[in-house]
Amino acid sequence: MAIPSNTNMNVIMRLQIDKELGSFGAIAATIGGTGGDIVGIDVISSSKTSTTRDITVNVYDQNHAELMKQAIEKIEGVKVVFVSDQTFLMHLGGKIETQPKIPIKNRDDLSRVYTPGVARVCTAIAEEQSKAYSLTIKRNTVAIISDGTAVLGLGDIGPHAAMPVMEGKAMLFKQLAGVDAFPLCLDTKDTEEIIAIVKAIAPTFGGINLEDISAPRCFEIEQRLKEELDIPVFHDDQHGTAVVILAALLNALKITGKKIEDIKVVLTGIGAAGIACAKILTAAGVRNLVGVDRYGAINRSEHYENDSWTMFAAMTNPDNLTGSLSDVIAGADVFIGVSAPNILKVEDVKRMAKDPIVFAMANPVPEIAPEAAEPHVRVMATGRSDYPNQINNVLCFPGVFRAALDCRATEINEAMKIAAAKAIASIIEEDELSETYIIPSVFNSKVVERVREAVIQAAYETGVARRKRGEAKREAGAEEAAITM
Amino acid sequence: MAIPSNTNMNVIMRLQIDKELGSFGAIAATIGGTGGDIVGIDVISSSKTSTTRDITVNVYDQNHAELMKQAIEKIEGVKVVFVSDQTFLMHLGGKIETQPKIPIKNRDDLSRVYTPGVARVCTAIAEEQSKAYSLTIKRNTVAIISDGTAVLGLGDIGPHAAMPVMEGKAMLFKQLAGVDAFPLCLDTKDTEEIIAIVKAIAPTFGGINLEDISAPRCFEIEQRLKEELDIPVFHDDQHGTAVVILAALLNALKITGKKIEDIKVVLTGIGAAGIACAKILTAAGVRNLVGVDRYGAINRSEHYENDSWTMFAAMTNPDNLTGSLSDVIAGADVFIGVSAPNILKVEDVKRMAKDPIVFAMANPVPEIAPEAAEPHVRVMATGRSDYPNQINNVLCFPGVFRAALDCRATEINEAMKIAAAKAIASIIEEDELSETYIIPSVFNSKVVERVREAVIQAAYETGVARRKRGEAKREAGAEEAAITM
Repeated sequence: MAIPSNTNMNVIMRLQIDKELGSFGAIAATIGGTGGDIVGIDVISSSKTSTTRDITVNVYDQNHAELMKQAIEKIEGVKVVFVSDQTFLMHLGGKIETQPKIPIKNRDDLSRVYTPGVARVCTAIAEEQSKAYSLTIKRNTVAIISDGTAVLGLGDIGPHAAMPVMEGKAMLFKQLAGVDAFPLCLDTKDTEEIIAIVKAIAPTFGGINLEDISAPRCFEIEQRLKEELDIPVFHDDQHGTAVVILAALLNALKITGKKIEDIKVVLTGIGAAGIACAKILTAAGVRNLVGVDRYGAINRSEHYENDSWTMFAAMTNPDNLTGSLSDVIAGADVFIGVSAPNILKVEDVKRMAKDPIVFAMANPVPEIAPEAAEPHVRVMATGRSDYPNQINNVLCFPGVFRAALDCRATEINEAMKIAAAKAIASIIEEDELSETYIIPSVFNSKVVERVREAVIQAAYETGVARRKRGEAKREAGAEEAAITM
Repeated sequence: MAIPSNTNMNVIMRLQIDKELGSFGAIAATIGGTGGDIVGIDVISSSKTSTTRDITVNVYDQNHAELMKQAIEKIEGVKVVFVSDQTFLMHLGGKIETQPKIPIKNRDDLSRVYTPGVARVCTAIAEEQSKAYSLTIKRNTVAIISDGTAVLGLGDIGPHAAMPVMEGKAMLFKQLAGVDAFPLCLDTKDTEEIIAIVKAIAPTFGGINLEDISAPRCFEIEQRLKEELDIPVFHDDQHGTAVVILAALLNALKITGKKIEDIKVVLTGIGAAGIACAKILTAAGVRNLVGVDRYGAINRSEHYENDSWTMFAAMTNPDNLTGSLSDVIAGADVFIGVSAPNILKVEDVKRMAKDPIVFAMANPVPEIAPEAAEPHVRVMATGRSDYPNQINNVLCFPGVFRAALDCRATEINEAMKIAAAKAIASIIEEDELSETYIIPSVFNSKVVERVREAVIQAAYETGVARRKRGEAKREAGAEEAAITM
């Protein structure tokens, strides 16, 4: 399995060393011999017969650590209790917690936050449901919902294994945008059941972030929930990616001096992200977009079992091109891959129009190696953090949900997504813009606020914001106490 | 609606005062005239024509505040923008939040907690699901599930209105026992759907606290979930109340010198709490228990539509008594009410056995007024905080769940509940025990740890603890990192 490893990571090995048989010299020699560097040594416990030590070692990658472990296990008098590393240690016990906002200091407090005083607050909401936005966590809380069927590049790993990703997402929601997000990983893959569950839990939440649910179920789940719920529903794998790709494209086009209406875009990978990408690009003005999946260009001469491909064919490929990626790439201004490793050849890139823009997003191995493509492209972007121009949906979801919650939007519509993309693109000033800087870093502190403002504006313009203008500000203003009597 | 109000509370009135017509003197006079005390005055904003001020006023209760508001509204040039109070202000924006345990400081951190580094952690769980207990929030996180059908004394107020109670419960879980609890209020009353939802969300959680779900649905929901899930499921309204009642009874019996096997108990209110109470009392040794509901004593000569009453009749009332509460109370050693206000008469108490024990738990108005009962009873307890001996399930659920999570129990069984009751009772030393001190305060810091130890012990004895003994400790020990390679 091609999981990218962190280069030069630290592992912690806990060794139980027999006082008579074991020798620390032998251990140090073995670690050095396999190419590891000892960073630290801690004595954990000591008995008459043995000493337990934690040895922190810098290694190249997981395989290196495994080889070192095997070598140490062969040393007489040394037992490897465990080998851990910092990534695993960061996840120990989970990465988020639920905190009371205020302490319960005495009986008065207890009565106010719990029974019996809380009854008046409950009654106020029962009489007017919208007060839930003022008197409960609803207004700042998003559910992160996954069934664990399409997690990272790992596929269907199930709800338990999906949790670390969803917890990480909750951390980002809070750190970047102050949104309280709670992950719920569902032990069902049934479309109707997932829809029913999300509808049932909705009273607690102000928004729903769907995550890592495989296609085509994700389309129906999102569509139905958007229709049936009055809070925003956003499948981040689709729309987050699409928004950030559009942001990157807008800036790349500034560099090549081409207009979005005039470009030919070839898009590979017509799954959840690819379809969302095609939709937002079309809404943003792209008129000539050709989608390619494993059977070639999606066109209107073919009959597809997959309904979403039929729909895709209807809205794209104006010249009804057929054939392979290599067939349709000729003359394209932009290649966008959300598909598979190494499917774009250097020869393909050479046949693109002048100043090719290549976004190769397959992760961890892109559609074309940046090193191979670079001599032939004008602008290159990937999903990876170790090349310039990382297209990362962390740029999108925190600000988009912050906006939707703050203006109490009923949905996150296409206009709001395009506004988010333009806001992300706008972070980079004209004089900063270059081939290797078309998209801001996820740590750029301007991103969330810029996205938030633009998305709120779009929400008001499209009539989906439920708060009065001027009220859509973050602080828990005292005016909200107006709800009480 | 008889909700007890906090005596002497502060309200905040926001007044918009016309600069020409309004007069602060008139406002102050009006407030004073209705018996309110001005505690503070803050100017919020000022325009050419008016000034907006927040006046904090100490009042007797909600009615007093309402009268004052009406009086002020009659003053010329003064507009009451809103009246709020501290209870509502404590709930503003909700009472809990989701916090990352560690900050994401840089790209390395981002990779470790989110993509791509998190993939290795996900894979480890996919390969061995039980690692979810080490590498996700599961081991410390409880879902608080309600459908809002039986909230406090308010009844079926719906999921939105139930949230303030559930959030309060989550605060108590964290503050008292370090448990991360998250409330989910469900927009469905369908038994099967609730069961399906809780099963589906279970991967995220280490335990399920059912709350304020009306009878008889709560029985089937709890029973089925206990059978179908491998994490503990605990309906607090039933078992929390039952545990604390048993704790109080154990200490009350020490005072009257009676043995639990010999006493006659009359129990009113054969709903969720009453049935759970009868079960735990029977398991703890009570042999003569008579249940009374609105149609009289539950007996085996009657045919009941309600299955739970038929079951109740089968396991109680050895002499098959029939008739009203007044008929069956004669000679009873203990009265326990989880029913309705003022149903127990002084004459009834007088006909009880020597040294009557009366637990009148109806809230806010007990089955008999403590003032009326006191001359005739030996030990009196209520659910209220303004009388001695408050029976409050806050004494139970934090420690019970702390224990279940720490030893990774598959269930919370009767032995664990009885252990919890004995632990709560044991907090009060023999020489401290008195008629007015049979149950510790919810703020007694010994309670959670004492309950935790006893419940863990019972879990091991009954074979439902999944962690090895010695591992059931709270800290996220480094030994758990052993899971990683």
